[in-house]
Amino acid sequence: MEKLEQQLRFLLELDKQKKIVRQTYLADGSRKEGDAEHAWHLAVMAFLLADYANEKIDVLKTIKMVLLHDVIEIDAGDTYAYDTCGLKTKQERELKAAERIYGMLPEEQKMEYRALWDEFEARETPEAKFARALDNVQPILLNHASGGRSWREHEVKKSQVMNRNAYTHEGSETLWEYIRNIIEENVKQGNLQDA
Amino acid sequence: MEKLEQQLRFLLELDKQKKIVRQTYLADGSRKEGDAEHAWHLAVMAFLLADYANEKIDVLKTIKMVLLHDVIEIDAGDTYAYDTCGLKTKQERELKAAERIYGMLPEEQKMEYRALWDEFEARETPEAKFARALDNVQPILLNHASGGRSWREHEVKKSQVMNRNAYTHEGSETLWEYIRNIIEENVKQGNLQDA
Repeated sequence: MEKLEQQLRFLLELDKQKKIVRQTYLADGSRKEGDAEHAWHLAVMAFLLADYANEKIDVLKTIKMVLLHDVIEIDAGDTYAYDTCGLKTKQERELKAAERIYGMLPEEQKMEYRALWDEFEARETPEAKFARALDNVQPILLNHASGGRSWREHEVKKSQVMNRNAYTHEGSETLWEYIRNIIEENVKQGNLQDA
Repeated sequence: MEKLEQQLRFLLELDKQKKIVRQTYLADGSRKEGDAEHAWHLAVMAFLLADYANEKIDVLKTIKMVLLHDVIEIDAGDTYAYDTCGLKTKQERELKAAERIYGMLPEEQKMEYRALWDEFEARETPEAKFARALDNVQPILLNHASGGRSWREHEVKKSQVMNRNAYTHEGSETLWEYIRNIIEENVKQGNLQDA
């Protein structure tokens, strides 16, 4: 029973992720997206679009990775992809958060989930490359659907989006090709600055 | 490319699920939970708590099931578990929604995901029994954490929660035992009516 209670405390701790707001708007532009909603969307993509991964992936492992990849934001907060100041302190804040939050789990699961997060961050395995690609592709799809609202509000440059997506092709050439067209379209529409 | 575009249209259609609000409050009671957040929480439970399933389960299948189980609410809306009027028309509304929404997918995935939903609804396989148990257990955990707020607002009776959970033990005896204690505690605290 102690083990179960430990797992349920972790589960309730995760509930806080629902309240972390990202900079991306929902497809209809009505409000910004929450972290848990983003993770849910990525998990669906992980099996819906698995065939587009460059390398064969373990789908279950990829899903676990994306479902928990933002857990650290409970303590570290969401750092906007194009916030250059926030990005400087991001790693330190996130490592501390990983220690505390994964540390709530029974030993075996603590090791497994923490290792999945490290793997996601390192972007070396087929699963991590694909998961990271999805994590970049999903907000682009939402930004495009909502008329580039978040990009315009933050005056984002095309070069920033391209840098952010420098490795997306390593996860999926197909998705990257699709997304590249969307980026160009949004430059033409003036949603992304051509710089 | 046509196949990919079909899948991405489905993915953006799913975005609407983020806006469907459930009757359960977040653990801290600050606001009600959205459908996508609920599905994300269930998916984490599916692997975090898999060892407590009565029968051996295919975890990936269970996760896919819970991630998509409420997709039909995009058209059919969320029917509160204790809304006796709404429950009368629920099945018809949901079947129609399943036709339309799963119908957006390429043939193979349409068949697979629709079959998973039917399986979830039929509650006969180990995966469906466990997924249904999680779907019942999660709001009880949140209700308990938020001081029974949703139960009090809807004047819910203990017997209603017990009926709703009549099959939870088929998915997991361990979770059912844990939840039963929580139900009793909330009767004592006056959050659930003792009737």
